[in-house]
Amino acid sequence: MSPQSHQILSGDLRALARAATAIENRSPQADHLLRELFPHTGRATIIGITGAPGAGKSTLVDKIAHALRQENKSVGIIAVDPTSPYTGGAILGDRIRMLDHHADPQVFIRSMATRGWLGGVAAATTDMAVLLDAAGRDVVLIETVGVGQDEVEIAKLAGVTVVVLVPGMGDDVQAIKAGIMEIADVFVINKADQPEPDRLEREIKAMQSLSTRKDGWVPPIVRTVAVDGQGIAETLAAVRSFLAHNDGKDRAVANWSQRLREMLRERLLHRFPDLDFHAAAEDIVSKRTDPYTIIDAWLNR
Amino acid sequence: MSPQSHQILSGDLRALARAATAIENRSPQADHLLRELFPHTGRATIIGITGAPGAGKSTLVDKIAHALRQENKSVGIIAVDPTSPYTGGAILGDRIRMLDHHADPQVFIRSMATRGWLGGVAAATTDMAVLLDAAGRDVVLIETVGVGQDEVEIAKLAGVTVVVLVPGMGDDVQAIKAGIMEIADVFVINKADQPEPDRLEREIKAMQSLSTRKDGWVPPIVRTVAVDGQGIAETLAAVRSFLAHNDGKDRAVANWSQRLREMLRERLLHRFPDLDFHAAAEDIVSKRTDPYTIIDAWLNR
Repeated sequence: MSPQSHQILSGDLRALARAATAIENRSPQADHLLRELFPHTGRATIIGITGAPGAGKSTLVDKIAHALRQENKSVGIIAVDPTSPYTGGAILGDRIRMLDHHADPQVFIRSMATRGWLGGVAAATTDMAVLLDAAGRDVVLIETVGVGQDEVEIAKLAGVTVVVLVPGMGDDVQAIKAGIMEIADVFVINKADQPEPDRLEREIKAMQSLSTRKDGWVPPIVRTVAVDGQGIAETLAAVRSFLAHNDGKDRAVANWSQRLREMLRERLLHRFPDLDFHAAAEDIVSKRTDPYTIIDAWLNR
Repeated sequence: MSPQSHQILSGDLRALARAATAIENRSPQADHLLRELFPHTGRATIIGITGAPGAGKSTLVDKIAHALRQENKSVGIIAVDPTSPYTGGAILGDRIRMLDHHADPQVFIRSMATRGWLGGVAAATTDMAVLLDAAGRDVVLIETVGVGQDEVEIAKLAGVTVVVLVPGMGDDVQAIKAGIMEIADVFVINKADQPEPDRLEREIKAMQSLSTRKDGWVPPIVRTVAVDGQGIAETLAAVRSFLAHNDGKDRAVANWSQRLREMLRERLLHRFPDLDFHAAAEDIVSKRTDPYTIIDAWLNR
């Protein structure tokens, strides 16, 4: 085993930070590290927290992290961010959050841009979770924005997924809920001091009454005012209740099945190091050829 | 050329609908069709419309479609939906929308689930846009939810991207804006009759003052009350103003470069038809092996 893996397994923070950067940069070193670290994973509780922008997820994640620290548990936070794909600009909020936990080495925060992950956001998030798990973090919190494909995949990675909603979100809240009903193991109605939390809770229950989950679980609905710390203990209790109900094995198998497919695709692509995608794309845009003909030509070389 | 391609190019609606379904199902027939249709693309205006859930995107898209129909333009709408990955349940709102335009064959709507696209949502959306473009639709409206990786990719596909915001979205509106500043060619403040649209406009302008786009464009900010039809004409004018400014070639090249990469990856994966990803994933979860060892073994067969 490499010295760096040893350092990570023994909880060395600087080694952890370096490894996180290697994963972010997809350096070849990262693959080697992950291979060494993988057998030491499986102990961390991985909690996914997702919801629309404005739902107060970051605040909720922070308060949960603080509550876990009260129990003397170590925490890793992976914030999957809709960072600018072009400028690489970082999200203001996260910089502030990092300052907030700065003094506590037992809260490790990494903000992952969604740009530039050739193998996909979920793949990079999986790698980061493997790292934090191996590094001995008791709980890994993965915060994602929205309800797209990425969030669905990350929900498979997490042992339990918390979906955060807010009263009065607007007229297509039905659409949101249709997308998240299946990934939510716990619902949080945050900002429950705003008007009409009862109405939102009724709507969630109405959606729940329409279908039954295969595992028989009925996701509990917890009300929070995260900014005041209200409902945080109840949220954690609901999370633990689900984890006691479901061992997460099916979900982990589904996640790794998808990750293997992605890893294989990426590695196969490495066999074509000299392809000029940009020049080919220019030929397509100028209609000198079409994408299907190009792919055939590459495959038949 | 196949009879089906002929029918599509001549505007046959049933052929179009069958082809859309073939693309959704990723049938081998779809590849063949797309190859035939590709040379006939490039005439449609592709408009991306994105924003958080609750922003009223669907209503805005509908009103824009109606305005375009007043100009006698034909319209295709691709709604990229966070549909359930497990049950395949459809979004209630879209069913209603389809009824709304049901009587008008010149508004073709397809709702694309984000689940199950092995090659990615952006790839499938590209294929659908190729189809609608070849089928002679004057304008293709692509509606996406959120600001994740998918939306960023789809923004490259669109010639112009409209970002929809709403006053009073909550305390991490800064975070949303950081993610969308770079993809927005036009900002729409929808529900502008709600309190504090001025404040949101000031915030957008403050963000805009922090950086300059490479193309020198300063995205205009349009106020709408989409549900009442207010501001729709102004939105279309802003969209056309951008299209007059930017021919979209750089964006199209970036999009096809990414698509080629994905297409090649998928096709390479087809060379391993007999791999049992599920069984391998089970071995990983039970710690009998690790993912990196499995990939190496597959590649070295």
